[in-house]
Amino acid sequence: MAKLIKERSRKAGLPPGALVHIGEKKTEQIKITILEYDEMHFREQEAKTIEECFPSKDKSRPTVAWINIDGIHRSDILGKLGECFGLHPLIVEDIMNTDQRPKIEDFDEYNYIVLKMLHLDGEIVSEQVSLILGSNFVLSFLEGDGDVFRVIRDRIRTNKGRIRKMGADYLAYCLLDAIVDNYFIILETLGEKIESLEDELVRNPNPRVLRAIYHLKRNMILLRRSVWPLRELIGGMERGESLLIQDTTRIYLRDIYDHTIHIIDTLETFREMVAGMLEIYLSSISYKLNAVIKVLTMIATIFMPLTFIAGIYGMNFKYMPELEWRWGYPMVLLIMAAVGIVMVFYFKRKKW
Amino acid sequence: MAKLIKERSRKAGLPPGALVHIGEKKTEQIKITILEYDEMHFREQEAKTIEECFPSKDKSRPTVAWINIDGIHRSDILGKLGECFGLHPLIVEDIMNTDQRPKIEDFDEYNYIVLKMLHLDGEIVSEQVSLILGSNFVLSFLEGDGDVFRVIRDRIRTNKGRIRKMGADYLAYCLLDAIVDNYFIILETLGEKIESLEDELVRNPNPRVLRAIYHLKRNMILLRRSVWPLRELIGGMERGESLLIQDTTRIYLRDIYDHTIHIIDTLETFREMVAGMLEIYLSSISYKLNAVIKVLTMIATIFMPLTFIAGIYGMNFKYMPELEWRWGYPMVLLIMAAVGIVMVFYFKRKKW
Amino acid sequence: MAKLIKERSRKAGLPPGALVHIGEKKTEQIKITILEYDEMHFREQEAKTIEECFPSKDKSRPTVAWINIDGIHRSDILGKLGECFGLHPLIVEDIMNTDQRPKIEDFDEYNYIVLKMLHLDGEIVSEQVSLILGSNFVLSFLEGDGDVFRVIRDRIRTNKGRIRKMGADYLAYCLLDAIVDNYFIILETLGEKIESLEDELVRNPNPRVLRAIYHLKRNMILLRRSVWPLRELIGGMERGESLLIQDTTRIYLRDIYDHTIHIIDTLETFREMVAGMLEIYLSSISYKLNAVIKVLTMIATIFMPLTFIAGIYGMNFKYMPELEWRWGYPMVLLIMAAVGIVMVFYFKRKKW
Amino acid sequence: MAKLIKERSRKAGLPPGALVHIGEKKTEQIKITILEYDEMHFREQEAKTIEECFPSKDKSRPTVAWINIDGIHRSDILGKLGECFGLHPLIVEDIMNTDQRPKIEDFDEYNYIVLKMLHLDGEIVSEQVSLILGSNFVLSFLEGDGDVFRVIRDRIRTNKGRIRKMGADYLAYCLLDAIVDNYFIILETLGEKIESLEDELVRNPNPRVLRAIYHLKRNMILLRRSVWPLRELIGGMERGESLLIQDTTRIYLRDIYDHTIHIIDTLETFREMVAGMLEIYLSSISYKLNAVIKVLTMIATIFMPLTFIAGIYGMNFKYMPELEWRWGYPMVLLIMAAVGIVMVFYFKRKKW
Amino acid sequence: MAKLIKERSRKAGLPPGALVHIGEKKTEQIKITILEYDEMHFREQEAKTIEECFPSKDKSRPTVAWINIDGIHRSDILGKLGECFGLHPLIVEDIMNTDQRPKIEDFDEYNYIVLKMLHLDGEIVSEQVSLILGSNFVLSFLEGDGDVFRVIRDRIRTNKGRIRKMGADYLAYCLLDAIVDNYFIILETLGEKIESLEDELVRNPNPRVLRAIYHLKRNMILLRRSVWPLRELIGGMERGESLLIQDTTRIYLRDIYDHTIHIIDTLETFREMVAGMLEIYLSSISYKLNAVIKVLTMIATIFMPLTFIAGIYGMNFKYMPELEWRWGYPMVLLIMAAVGIVMVFYFKRKKW
Repeated sequence: MAKLIKERSRKAGLPPGALVHIGEKKTEQIKITILEYDEMHFREQEAKTIEECFPSKDKSRPTVAWINIDGIHRSDILGKLGECFGLHPLIVEDIMNTDQRPKIEDFDEYNYIVLKMLHLDGEIVSEQVSLILGSNFVLSFLEGDGDVFRVIRDRIRTNKGRIRKMGADYLAYCLLDAIVDNYFIILETLGEKIESLEDELVRNPNPRVLRAIYHLKRNMILLRRSVWPLRELIGGMERGESLLIQDTTRIYLRDIYDHTIHIIDTLETFREMVAGMLEIYLSSISYKLNAVIKVLTMIATIFMPLTFIAGIYGMNFKYMPELEWRWGYPMVLLIMAAVGIVMVFYFKRKKW
Repeated sequence: MAKLIKERSRKAGLPPGALVHIGEKKTEQIKITILEYDEMHFREQEAKTIEECFPSKDKSRPTVAWINIDGIHRSDILGKLGECFGLHPLIVEDIMNTDQRPKIEDFDEYNYIVLKMLHLDGEIVSEQVSLILGSNFVLSFLEGDGDVFRVIRDRIRTNKGRIRKMGADYLAYCLLDAIVDNYFIILETLGEKIESLEDELVRNPNPRVLRAIYHLKRNMILLRRSVWPLRELIGGMERGESLLIQDTTRIYLRDIYDHTIHIIDTLETFREMVAGMLEIYLSSISYKLNAVIKVLTMIATIFMPLTFIAGIYGMNFKYMPELEWRWGYPMVLLIMAAVGIVMVFYFKRKKW
Repeated sequence: MAKLIKERSRKAGLPPGALVHIGEKKTEQIKITILEYDEMHFREQEAKTIEECFPSKDKSRPTVAWINIDGIHRSDILGKLGECFGLHPLIVEDIMNTDQRPKIEDFDEYNYIVLKMLHLDGEIVSEQVSLILGSNFVLSFLEGDGDVFRVIRDRIRTNKGRIRKMGADYLAYCLLDAIVDNYFIILETLGEKIESLEDELVRNPNPRVLRAIYHLKRNMILLRRSVWPLRELIGGMERGESLLIQDTTRIYLRDIYDHTIHIIDTLETFREMVAGMLEIYLSSISYKLNAVIKVLTMIATIFMPLTFIAGIYGMNFKYMPELEWRWGYPMVLLIMAAVGIVMVFYFKRKKW
Repeated sequence: MAKLIKERSRKAGLPPGALVHIGEKKTEQIKITILEYDEMHFREQEAKTIEECFPSKDKSRPTVAWINIDGIHRSDILGKLGECFGLHPLIVEDIMNTDQRPKIEDFDEYNYIVLKMLHLDGEIVSEQVSLILGSNFVLSFLEGDGDVFRVIRDRIRTNKGRIRKMGADYLAYCLLDAIVDNYFIILETLGEKIESLEDELVRNPNPRVLRAIYHLKRNMILLRRSVWPLRELIGGMERGESLLIQDTTRIYLRDIYDHTIHIIDTLETFREMVAGMLEIYLSSISYKLNAVIKVLTMIATIFMPLTFIAGIYGMNFKYMPELEWRWGYPMVLLIMAAVGIVMVFYFKRKKW
Repeated sequence: MAKLIKERSRKAGLPPGALVHIGEKKTEQIKITILEYDEMHFREQEAKTIEECFPSKDKSRPTVAWINIDGIHRSDILGKLGECFGLHPLIVEDIMNTDQRPKIEDFDEYNYIVLKMLHLDGEIVSEQVSLILGSNFVLSFLEGDGDVFRVIRDRIRTNKGRIRKMGADYLAYCLLDAIVDNYFIILETLGEKIESLEDELVRNPNPRVLRAIYHLKRNMILLRRSVWPLRELIGGMERGESLLIQDTTRIYLRDIYDHTIHIIDTLETFREMVAGMLEIYLSSISYKLNAVIKVLTMIATIFMPLTFIAGIYGMNFKYMPELEWRWGYPMVLLIMAAVGIVMVFYFKRKKW
């Protein structure tokens, strides 16, 4: 099961801006990829040293530079990068701390965006993505390897869609869009699980179902923590006054914003559904208990009086006239049958 | 049961604005109907090709054009239409994606409105309706065939009411009104189901009732997802600053707005009712369990001591003086009767 | 039990402004009463035809006119009246539709106020009241006969209080005040029911109590639907900018506004109380179940071993030495007594 | 238990401003005390007739006048007082109606403040306090005798603190502060009750605890009704624009405002605690039920097979070879012991 | 367990501004430490008398002074200090009252900040910290000894980070940051407890788990009371217009603000988790009950009929033909076996 909280405590006491990696290391080697493009040009390069990225900062270049960094555990590399691109020390600290709440911070020179990328790997796995949007560059920081951005890289390479015609803000939008699209896949999977559990709940409520419900609920609580702040984040970008985002891009941001609302709506719907399932589970269990107890009561109510009657004529008194009667035994059998039938009819009439 | 979520995942990775139909195809053939009217004129035409609609775009015409498209799965046709009427690619994408949250988007040239039309067909069936409101035209997009708009078409044909005297915004209002009116029918059906379940709940709580309650709840959760955003949507239109909506129409929009609030109120009332029913179900089951257990306890408490007494005198000891007594047997019978009567009185007094 | 929803569906498909009565007809004959008064003059008249009301519309008259219409099912009469007093068709439609949510609509020439009048008749009975407040007239529309307004009519006739000195807005306030005062009576009755149920709940939780709680809850849910919008309504009047309401009247409206808040507060308090009662009910039932099961367990635990011992010596083996012993029988009886006593002590110590 | 609602219905139908006392009469005689003071002067007087208060109204006096009225059931006296001090008839009506929601009303000449004073007398007892704050006078109205204000009276008499140096607004603040301070005492008592119930809940959940929890909950629901509006009230005074309150006093009001928030916070914390206790109660009861049922099942599972075996050899068939065996009896006893031991081990292994 | 509320009642009746210590005395001796520093200079001194702090107030000094007071129960010392630094009497009163809700108060000359410092000592222990931020000084008041601030003192001594280059506002930020960092440690501990309880809940639900859940819940309710107001507090500082806080410091405050939101988010997530655990507990108990009852019912249903049959042939009637049959006994044994097997198959088929 996903961990509830990351170990942040070892940072307590350090001065603000201290660069400490919080989270588990998902990749050994840091991999830096540089893409530079405009409508006509395209250059792709894997950087050996961080210094190779520095020229991309130059504002006078007409191209858009996208520098993608896979792996965020090396404070020396990130420190240098931050210094070169003029990032506030607190921002570099935040990039290295994977226990961040999704948010956007708006500086004059750049915007800092941090959010969670989710994918399914049996469990829901959450990875933190940080974006720095400058006037003509985008820095993206991933914990592991950035497979999710491959489609966008392909789109740039092949000049598909309008991405090569637009600026860095549109690139940032595309990255966000790719991340948010993944949330729908998670939701679909959750939706299917809920539907299959609904069936099983009606057919056969058992502790396995209960555990599955609890597991679903837990996942949705954690999911919610990633999704709700997203709304603010993207809403803030769309309505914001940052000069880094152009009006033509804003309409696309409104589209992701709608997606986010849609995701939140669906998640809340799911939550209500799961809450309802738990109530149904409890009610079903209670009903089943009733049914079982009724069987027990019927059996006891029928056989206890019969056994008692048999017990009476099993007594060894010397003077028990019935025992001597010729038809004593059949008579008692008849009486027993009568008692049994009366009981059964009684239960029938009470509609047990 | 209605599906919780539509398969949106196959869009993940495509560039924004890519036209992919999401949802199930409800009609094979796309059917395009054009109505043009003003107070004096009326023309109705079924278009063979999408190109026949293009003249309606002309702003200089004095008539109002209503183009209704049944079927939204053909990206080529919708793409051409969008281009001709100057729709943003994201809007055409949204029209083809039936997993939209109800919303309004306000462009200078047109308003895009998307909402859910509900009708009953055993289950609650939801169909997505998109409207494009221009200065003198309305485009309406339906998933299946647009039977719900027949009354409005008739009203235009027969020049009933004020519809022919008013502009495109009033036509859009009429379409919205027809859709929202259908919600009341759904609510009435739900209300009747709740009332009949209330009766059955009191008479005979059983798992069928429980399943019916859950089913109701599920429907209401899904319904809610369609209804709540409607409020924003229509409230936005009424208060909005769009120049496409005239003040004389705004008062009608306020009327639908009130309807929407009324629908939400009623839905929330129903939700509380259903929540209450579940509690009553659980309480009733618990009470019944109590009653059954009491019967069992009474039977056991009466017959166990009696059977024990019979067991004692069924023992085969050689020296049991009571067995030899002349009145031993009747005496024991009397004792048993006494024990039984005492028990019954005891339960009477404890008011079982 | 009160109906959850009114049959509104037969209006679906009609053009907006179509006059259709929705609700049950509570009176056969429409009765129209006209009162005209100022500080010096007073005239009361029962109108035979609707046309007799039309002169009251004249704005130059110094008197205040109050036209009360009992019965709202005649679309011809209300249509004529609406036309004469310049009411918007949607307003007349709303007056005839008794399934309205309380609201106020502010037109230049008049205000339209619709709310629910509640009275107790075994059940809580709800009746819709519509008021049209003009500059020097008030129209009031009731479903049945307007007994609730008799005290105000008397006050006008006898010139009691300041009503004859004030304008039409004060008259409207008086009518609202009379309606809101009735809500307190409902609340008092509910409060008494809750208190008596609290007693019974502690003494003897049974399904009758459960049903009563559910009934209370249902009533409060329905009541809430009438009361919450009232707050907005009267708050809107008080703070509103309508020129029809004078400042001297506004302070009185603030008084009703406080009453409304007080009613809502009390209702919410009641709702919490009733929710608490349901929990107590469930807990009590569970506790009682425990008590009964304990009795059963004690009986079984005492008598099952005893019966087993008796069973052993009821076996017919040839070679059972104990059976031949002189003191075998009393010994076994002693053993049984010992087992029984040990069991009883065991339960005592476990504090059953 | 405290009543849920006061009998307000007898006012229904009366014109607004009619002076009717609502609530129970807590004192027979009305007692009027006048204090007049400034930094140098101090005069205390018990007024025989209401007319003796009238001179205090004079605005040209440099002193602050505090008129305290114990007992609010005499409409003649309050009517005269209201007239003299220029109170709006609705205000005097409100003072006499003890079923008020705490509120402040801001008139030009005076502020009207009404709130609840709580003290413990076994139960929580609520008393309504009305304050009229004028430019140089404060009128305070109590239902019973005003013991709670004695400390303030002493402080004025002995010229302790800064009260004699400040104006009427500071006096009003002191009265409010004294009332709000009492709420903390109530909270402390509730807190102690919750803590002692928590202990008992763990040790021995029984219906007495359940009733105590319900009683606590009820008290807190009622308490909440008095406390929540207080926040608005004092917040309104602090931020308000009333010229009657000076800036030096505002900082003291901010202090009470903080206290009110603190009280609300604590109350909400308590409410959550009590809600949690109810859940624990139910869970404990359920667990206990399980334990009891397990005992029953074990006893039945062990002794039923044994009794059955004994029953078999108690049958009277002529040809039962085992009965003739020399070691038949001990063998059967051994078998029985084996069955019993197997059962016990079975339960052990299942960890019952 | 932590106390729910502190004894505040003994203050009731005292004039506002009266200095009374509320809370438990955590240290005997008051310890006063003075640090004065700027980029070049550093002076540390333990003050014997309170008067030694007074020079630090001098605004013309270029250094920043941090006066830390451990122990707040001496009203004479705090009174003098307050007078010298120009604190409002209500502020000094608040510093001595450890039952404060976290808040900030903004005066022209200084800001007063009060919040809770939490650390784990088996239980969550809460200590109140008050800060006074002036233009070039910070006063910090702790209940016990200020070990939590040691790291900051070290950072100042060793001139690590940028603390010596910045003003008093940055020092205040550092103190707040150190306090808020501790909250994460608490959250981690809670998170681990939740995870270990989740495991145990699935494996073996028992009352110990229930008590642990309740204990967790209680802790989180109390924690919440400290955390929620923190958000307002720091949000207020960040957005506030206080001239005491410089823009370069504001960005650091935004960082703590994000931390606070993150803490609140996590806490709410935990609360939902714990609520879910309680439901799972109840459901598990119910399911177990069902399982046990099923065993009981099976045993009873199998053995009661068998015992009854044995009872029949244990009767002593003279004329019972079966008893004489040669194969009577084996036949009855066969019948019994058949009945038993049928029962077992019946339960198998019903999937018990």
